[in-house]
Amino acid sequence: TMTHRIAIIAGDGIGTEVMPEGVRALEATAKRFNIDLEFTTFEFGSCDYYLEHGKMLPDDWFEQLKGFDALFYGAVGWPDKVPDHISLWGSLLQFRRRFDQYINLRPCKLMPGIKSPLAGREPGDIDFYVVRENTEGEYSSVGGKMFEGTDREVVIQDTVMTRTGVDRVLKYAFELAQTRPRKKLTSATKSNGISITMPYWDERVVEMAKGYPEIAVDKFHIDILTANFVLHPDWFDVVVGSNLFGDILSDLGPACTGTIGIAPSANINPEGHFPSLFEPVHGSAPDIAGKGIANPIGQIWSGAMMLEHLGYKEAGDAMVTAIEAVLSEGDSQVLTRDVGGQGTTASLGQAIAKAI
Amino acid sequence: TMTHRIAIIAGDGIGTEVMPEGVRALEATAKRFNIDLEFTTFEFGSCDYYLEHGKMLPDDWFEQLKGFDALFYGAVGWPDKVPDHISLWGSLLQFRRRFDQYINLRPCKLMPGIKSPLAGREPGDIDFYVVRENTEGEYSSVGGKMFEGTDREVVIQDTVMTRTGVDRVLKYAFELAQTRPRKKLTSATKSNGISITMPYWDERVVEMAKGYPEIAVDKFHIDILTANFVLHPDWFDVVVGSNLFGDILSDLGPACTGTIGIAPSANINPEGHFPSLFEPVHGSAPDIAGKGIANPIGQIWSGAMMLEHLGYKEAGDAMVTAIEAVLSEGDSQVLTRDVGGQGTTASLGQAIAKAI
Ligand SMILES: CC(C)[C@H](C(=O)O)[C@@H](O)C(=O)O
Ligand SMILES: CC(C)[C@H](C(=O)O)[C@@H](O)C(=O)O
Repeated sequence: TMTHRIAIIAGDGIGTEVMPEGVRALEATAKRFNIDLEFTTFEFGSCDYYLEHGKMLPDDWFEQLKGFDALFYGAVGWPDKVPDHISLWGSLLQFRRRFDQYINLRPCKLMPGIKSPLAGREPGDIDFYVVRENTEGEYSSVGGKMFEGTDREVVIQDTVMTRTGVDRVLKYAFELAQTRPRKKLTSATKSNGISITMPYWDERVVEMAKGYPEIAVDKFHIDILTANFVLHPDWFDVVVGSNLFGDILSDLGPACTGTIGIAPSANINPEGHFPSLFEPVHGSAPDIAGKGIANPIGQIWSGAMMLEHLGYKEAGDAMVTAIEAVLSEGDSQVLTRDVGGQGTTASLGQAIAKAI
Repeated sequence: TMTHRIAIIAGDGIGTEVMPEGVRALEATAKRFNIDLEFTTFEFGSCDYYLEHGKMLPDDWFEQLKGFDALFYGAVGWPDKVPDHISLWGSLLQFRRRFDQYINLRPCKLMPGIKSPLAGREPGDIDFYVVRENTEGEYSSVGGKMFEGTDREVVIQDTVMTRTGVDRVLKYAFELAQTRPRKKLTSATKSNGISITMPYWDERVVEMAKGYPEIAVDKFHIDILTANFVLHPDWFDVVVGSNLFGDILSDLGPACTGTIGIAPSANINPEGHFPSLFEPVHGSAPDIAGKGIANPIGQIWSGAMMLEHLGYKEAGDAMVTAIEAVLSEGDSQVLTRDVGGQGTTASLGQAIAKAI
């Protein structure tokens, strides 16, 4: 069997607490499916590393990581130690950009045993993907400040969209829609207000749609789209958005399914030129860090997406099935507080590993 | 008594259907409270006007409108006739900018008789304001396209924040928070990802907060903030955001209170140098236009905000009380479909006018 080399970066806060459970579940799966995973742990990419070294990553991080088959990532950020824009731009956002992980894929699925905050929604009612552009758009590094410290102070930041960048994420989203029974794609826009980049985004959607006549395409402005996530989550199948809009929708979607602490994400370089990165949607959550109560499912489910990406779809599915089984069982000694139990990160992680 | 001159621009789609009910309610209120309102109706600012004249507004619109005491506005946009960015930038966004209506104020309130899509929420549970910056930020007119039609095509749009622009909306929001029992202000940011303008926004919030030690201030990144609107709408009191973030939150908030077709908004020039503009949050809704089924409450409630702005708080409150009374009554012959009835725009508008 082939060895898959996985780089582990746990990061900050609850990232360091859920990571061991992610690894535990992966090891159980690897054993059952006879997959050869080799884990290497890195200390960099955390705010503590920053406090010691004055930077989030060593200068040769790219060389150190580029040979891995995947990055398994926790969560980064601890605003009391390092401002968020420094910790994030110094780590996660570097990986996404330099490893050209231009797809951020995030499932929004109402899971058994999880109560949706939306009235009357049952498992099966909500099941869609958010496909987020992950390298350009509103997350740019172009801009600056002028007349600093005076009343004339002005701050400018560019949103940058390239045809390459927009077309490739749209293509991925259309291809994904084609694999789904409903074959439906929704584009997030704001072309009525953001009058240069967003009309361009719309144009490219129209152009790309020509190649996929079997896909039903619609679009909503981001304001009413967020409203529709709450009012009509059943409308959606594949939702594609820019870096910022995808970011918003992929927190809001999981919130609507009651799984903000559970949702996984994949930052994918589809061509495989660079390692892809798998991380929970939730952040480092300083407010609950250190208590051992964080829900490890986001990390474990991200591991499932990683196995699928490495070619082990059956193994990834088995992990998701195990998660669903433990959630359905609803043992309050096992489940963490956010899903109605009194258990710990470890109790829930162990139960899932056992179910695998 | 002093005459208040109101300019009416109904716009497109259901804008033209709800406007008469807005006027009906205002006339009933004016009669009861002995207020002298003089309405002047304008045909411009609609897509039909555009089709005839090749522009949304006549060249002298500013001169024609600037002397009014307020603009009472329906909804604009009909994408099959005119692309949204042309119709909106050619009308509403011009008014907001040229009349320096730098505050967009939008209440999010769970009303009696309205079912929230959120499980277990009752009237009284949700009651907050979104204060949106309304003239700059992400809605800029700076940017362009290069390498058009080639693979190198790149499109750029600037987000522009000025100290003047940011500070004045923050000041308004802090002042508003001070009038509220909970004295709480939440800032919408995204400084972890949008690394130039958003950290600046955060800085100005910290600076402004120094002048308001009695206000409890917190901030959330926009992604988790949208999630928290769904998960913890009771957390919020006054929420302040940039042009784009305020736009999103002021659709999502009303969606969470089940009132997306009901919510009002005020585009305010607080100094009174120019007329302020009052409009429902909903758009022109081409899909239901022409059927007479649109809910007129957003328009009527916007009229209430207009009266309050003109100095008639008691009269504005009476309009809101009438809306609440008709909603509480729950007569399905009166209520429109979106709130569970079988009535029409006119039946609901007439009932509210009668209640006033
Ligand atoms: C129609 C559109 C340009 C407008 C906006 O984005 O400001 C609307 O959504 C609003 O919220 O008033
Ligand atoms: C931490 C932050 C920079 C990041 C983002 O905005 O991309 C996060 O919210 C996410 O969604 O992965």
